[in-house]
Amino acid sequence: MNTALLIDEVRLTPILIADPPLLNTQGVHQPYTPRLIVEVVTRGGVTGIGETYGDGKYLDLARPLAEALPGRPVSDVNGLFALASEVCGDSRGPDERADASRVDAGGLRGVQTADKLRLSVVSGFEVACLDALGRTLGLPVHALLGGKVRDSVEYSAYLFYRWAEHPDTGEKDDWDAALDPAGIVAQARRFVRDHGFSSFKLKGGVFEPEQEIAAVRALAEAFPGRPLRLDPNGAWSVPTSLRVADELADVLEYLEDPASGTELMAEVSAGTSVPLATNMCVTTVPEIAEAFSRDAVQVVLSDHHYWGGLHRTRELAAVCRAFGVGLSMHSNTHLGISLAAMTQVAATVPNLDYACDSHYPWQTEDVITARHIFRDGRLDVSDAPGLGVELDREKLAVLHRRWLDDDGAMRERDDAAAMRKADPAWTTPSIPRW
Amino acid sequence: MNTALLIDEVRLTPILIADPPLLNTQGVHQPYTPRLIVEVVTRGGVTGIGETYGDGKYLDLARPLAEALPGRPVSDVNGLFALASEVCGDSRGPDERADASRVDAGGLRGVQTADKLRLSVVSGFEVACLDALGRTLGLPVHALLGGKVRDSVEYSAYLFYRWAEHPDTGEKDDWDAALDPAGIVAQARRFVRDHGFSSFKLKGGVFEPEQEIAAVRALAEAFPGRPLRLDPNGAWSVPTSLRVADELADVLEYLEDPASGTELMAEVSAGTSVPLATNMCVTTVPEIAEAFSRDAVQVVLSDHHYWGGLHRTRELAAVCRAFGVGLSMHSNTHLGISLAAMTQVAATVPNLDYACDSHYPWQTEDVITARHIFRDGRLDVSDAPGLGVELDREKLAVLHRRWLDDDGAMRERDDAAAMRKADPAWTTPSIPRW
Repeated sequence: MNTALLIDEVRLTPILIADPPLLNTQGVHQPYTPRLIVEVVTRGGVTGIGETYGDGKYLDLARPLAEALPGRPVSDVNGLFALASEVCGDSRGPDERADASRVDAGGLRGVQTADKLRLSVVSGFEVACLDALGRTLGLPVHALLGGKVRDSVEYSAYLFYRWAEHPDTGEKDDWDAALDPAGIVAQARRFVRDHGFSSFKLKGGVFEPEQEIAAVRALAEAFPGRPLRLDPNGAWSVPTSLRVADELADVLEYLEDPASGTELMAEVSAGTSVPLATNMCVTTVPEIAEAFSRDAVQVVLSDHHYWGGLHRTRELAAVCRAFGVGLSMHSNTHLGISLAAMTQVAATVPNLDYACDSHYPWQTEDVITARHIFRDGRLDVSDAPGLGVELDREKLAVLHRRWLDDDGAMRERDDAAAMRKADPAWTTPSIPRW
Repeated sequence: MNTALLIDEVRLTPILIADPPLLNTQGVHQPYTPRLIVEVVTRGGVTGIGETYGDGKYLDLARPLAEALPGRPVSDVNGLFALASEVCGDSRGPDERADASRVDAGGLRGVQTADKLRLSVVSGFEVACLDALGRTLGLPVHALLGGKVRDSVEYSAYLFYRWAEHPDTGEKDDWDAALDPAGIVAQARRFVRDHGFSSFKLKGGVFEPEQEIAAVRALAEAFPGRPLRLDPNGAWSVPTSLRVADELADVLEYLEDPASGTELMAEVSAGTSVPLATNMCVTTVPEIAEAFSRDAVQVVLSDHHYWGGLHRTRELAAVCRAFGVGLSMHSNTHLGISLAAMTQVAATVPNLDYACDSHYPWQTEDVITARHIFRDGRLDVSDAPGLGVELDREKLAVLHRRWLDDDGAMRERDDAAAMRKADPAWTTPSIPRW
């Protein structure tokens, strides 16, 4: 093995990035969201970069993994899973344990388990390793995954109900509030103008279903024939889900997580012809078999942060292909490193059936030198070595300084706490909310 | 893209390799079996090698693919499938078409379709491309697949009923006939002595089930506690399959393809606790969903020649992992290039649950410079660049000369035709045979 490929050092940099006041069924985005930037440096002097969640529970898992990596080949990404299990004190593989150790029964990413957290941490390291490997070899990451099968990847406009400014800090960007159908359509028009998106996803579960139905109807009128999606994050009962599906059947490309969990999703699925998508009830390997066998979902929104990286994302795509389940991509708040990783892996998957989600257009800050630019709603697939993006150390230092200076209030993303700044009586709604 | 990685030339060399008179339910191996050696040469002057089936129907598909490759990056293996479909005149992807174009309803590899043939051809090209890529980059193939998770791969002893010599030509190797339990045990003892194997698979479907049960019983007595398998290639009815499973339940690790097709396998599976393995009813992606959903098989024997290469083999492993189905590896007659490829991909798969099959110990000829050596039934995973094997051009020339000089009789593998040399009245048995 080429010693230049051995890992010499791993640097972890937690940061806080500005986030607009986007609303969802649990609350509102905080003014700042934590992310973790992973740098893997080889003995050959090459640095690869990755990005993942940055809350404390992720940092606690990332630190021992970072300490365990030096001396290992940067090409050895399959071995990261057993290593992560090992250094976190559990010798079983992550897949076997995903039903164990539930640490958090809420959250927009479904039930959180220790294994899901660990896979998300591994994803940041895997991407950094692949970036370093690609840079060393002079190959784009997609070539390390068998090569691209498309030259560009389509993304959708990710529409949110939102306020114009954060309630506590008053911080604002240059977007207006969007709290009704007209506001959502205006937001969509700007997304089309700025980025050329031609499909639209509305984050729902914020207002009563009738209002969200009206917003989707308004989008359908403003953009006739364009693919539309609605995602209430599991906030609805089965009857509500079926009613919304029925009312929007003629315009929805798919309905995302109307109800919560495989059991209820299967009930909804049995009662509608609208395809159901999920990034909540199928987020780990052990959840696949039941959901697919029961035809609970027709589209899986993959997310390399959830599934443990780019190789695992390709494997998920293969499982979907085998079972005739559609594939798209999910997104939480993320920066340009993860968008580059999403685009690289998306380029290699034959069965990418829908435009991918991305929060990226909402992010005014980044840690890379040149922002990604959507053209006609698409990103070109970079053929430059690695991910094709460069870390901007000055920007990174500024965002890390913000994390260091924070009193802890923003270091954990908590949409309910953020909502309480506007509504002190707010608590995380129990589901079904409607 | 590094122009040194562009494909400059592809060489196809059909060969005939010596094969012993091994018996199966369709007949007997011919004195010679066709294989195809694929060489992919890059502009950088690096040559990668692959190996696949060599019958005329494979050569007919390989030639246009070989002509289409120059100018493409050797790293672009994901693109081989669409290219193969395209140059063979069909624009649909291979997975979508696997139920179409059935060209042959028999054979030991289950129903043969045009798509299965094409995937087998692609596999030889994919392996050659990965070998060339690895050699260029100085990386073993396993590192191109995300890295090994084990340092050696276990193989099983592949026991056959056999004659001492071929009936027509009288050609023989240094093995005795094995036509009864004592002969099988003697064969197993030599495999243990020569290679250190500690698990055993008997190719069945040759004699009446009672005799094969007796052979497995004799193995169990000779090698107490060792994993044993029996594979009649779908020759049995459901009642016969259940009877054999019942009689051998205490010693079988698994029973391989007792009955033919998913429908009958599901019936057998429902009636026995002995795990069922297959390399006949699950050999393509479209066959997975029904077989897994019905619990028709508990172990899939992957074969990179069937599934379209090493990336696809890893994807199959992921599907098995998601559905709790075991994984091992199947083998037809093959040489050292394919054994190297099997070992490289097997090293990367976390859920390799059983010792892999290989015909390799039966092959006295090869096209590589140094034969693989099993130690304690295992092969070390090479960390040398590419597959870690070197083509011996003199040996290749000799075996190609044999192919050129053949009058056509051996260029198509036909076990029934070979059997007619001994038994002129032999026809391929209809199934269930017993």
